[in-house]
Amino acid sequence: MFEFDADTALTEDGDGRQGTITDRWNVGPIPNGGYIAAIGATAMAAVATHPDPMSVTTHFLRPAVPGPVRVVASSVRTGRTHTWLQASLTQESGDIARMMAIFGDLDGSGPTSITGVVPELPDPALLVSSQSLPKVFSLARRFDMRLDPATAGGAMGSPTGTPEMAGWMRFADGREPDTRALVLCADAMPPPVLNLIPAAWVPTLEYTVHVRARPAPGWLRGRFRTRFLMEGLLEEDGELWDSEDRLVALSRQFARVRAG
Amino acid sequence: MFEFDADTALTEDGDGRQGTITDRWNVGPIPNGGYIAAIGATAMAAVATHPDPMSVTTHFLRPAVPGPVRVVASSVRTGRTHTWLQASLTQESGDIARMMAIFGDLDGSGPTSITGVVPELPDPALLVSSQSLPKVFSLARRFDMRLDPATAGGAMGSPTGTPEMAGWMRFADGREPDTRALVLCADAMPPPVLNLIPAAWVPTLEYTVHVRARPAPGWLRGRFRTRFLMEGLLEEDGELWDSEDRLVALSRQFARVRAG
Repeated sequence: MFEFDADTALTEDGDGRQGTITDRWNVGPIPNGGYIAAIGATAMAAVATHPDPMSVTTHFLRPAVPGPVRVVASSVRTGRTHTWLQASLTQESGDIARMMAIFGDLDGSGPTSITGVVPELPDPALLVSSQSLPKVFSLARRFDMRLDPATAGGAMGSPTGTPEMAGWMRFADGREPDTRALVLCADAMPPPVLNLIPAAWVPTLEYTVHVRARPAPGWLRGRFRTRFLMEGLLEEDGELWDSEDRLVALSRQFARVRAG
Repeated sequence: MFEFDADTALTEDGDGRQGTITDRWNVGPIPNGGYIAAIGATAMAAVATHPDPMSVTTHFLRPAVPGPVRVVASSVRTGRTHTWLQASLTQESGDIARMMAIFGDLDGSGPTSITGVVPELPDPALLVSSQSLPKVFSLARRFDMRLDPATAGGAMGSPTGTPEMAGWMRFADGREPDTRALVLCADAMPPPVLNLIPAAWVPTLEYTVHVRARPAPGWLRGRFRTRFLMEGLLEEDGELWDSEDRLVALSRQFARVRAG
């Protein structure tokens, strides 16, 4: 079993589901927000009539801690083309997250017009793998990331001054991406604000990811930007593209920044 | 009393609040989604400990209709710096919207770094007011909008081919903008996808607005883009700037497009 599937597995427990938040997806001592959202999306997928998480919003109420988590997910409405869902995630400390999601079927058809462009990145074979760097965060051990040298400074304590982060990513254990994994992947790269403020801690308040296509196997490419850091609050906008040059996820989060 | 305040007013009713969705903010026969979200935000503001809606997410479950609406809003958690809230809006047809919001205080201070740029627009005095055009939608009568001629074609049945919409806006009755009104304003301009597909109907599935600053009195400037129309699904990203060149709201919505 792959790490992501093992660490998001849930078992039925009365009107909810029980799981374990492991310490394998941490940033510092705190489990990554995308990982928490993926656990909630897993519970919602189990009750959704439609297969794909299309829009997933998570509010983070308290820092999660490694340990047991209870997830209660329910359908709010099931229509012909979409299921609307809600979920709450609770640990011993109280509610850690509330979520709303819309599931649908990404096999649909309709008008298509794309003006966004795939990130231009050096070939991943030419870049240093995150697997060869000192592993300060357990999250970094779960992925093989190849950050664009033009943006990687912030992740290594040398801010570039430009709040962008881009690179290739895949699970280190060979698991291929799917729509559920994108909920994690769109929050897994180092925050671009690290290129402005070194060693900052960036707790997310709200995180919304739109899954736009089922990813092809292979590398994902990500590009993340923060255009408006205002009075310690920021948005982080992300795109994930698959190995066939297709946009597969758009993400935005609203976060605070605290000096490290 | 200004139109926006009259049409979002709520009265207490047991564990919820009662109001009226008027037909004054319609697009076609359907009340605008931003207007529905503003009604929900009004109910949440009444129970929030903190003054400003910072992140507001709305899921649209069914089309709203002009008529009575019941809103149940509650605090999920109140912390030192933020209140997390949820709300449901119900009409005779059933639940029309579910919402989650984070309120806070935009008077805070902290690091600031901005790379986004204010939209460049012709002077509003040089542009045609929406007030002088035939009023097919009641929403258009509530605002004085001055659309950038480079993007306005889609709103008049002549798509430009570029999915952007930009312009000046203010309430037609002179009401000044505030953080609550921004929840409406960030969804009030014609959708940029009209510059690709004329006369499309664009029902919103999910709408998230980040309110980033309290707006100064006067004109708002908006710029909205759709970069990824894929199989009939699209995102719409927006920015609202105030008369002092400050970004006051970032918005993103996830919507379907249907040929008109």
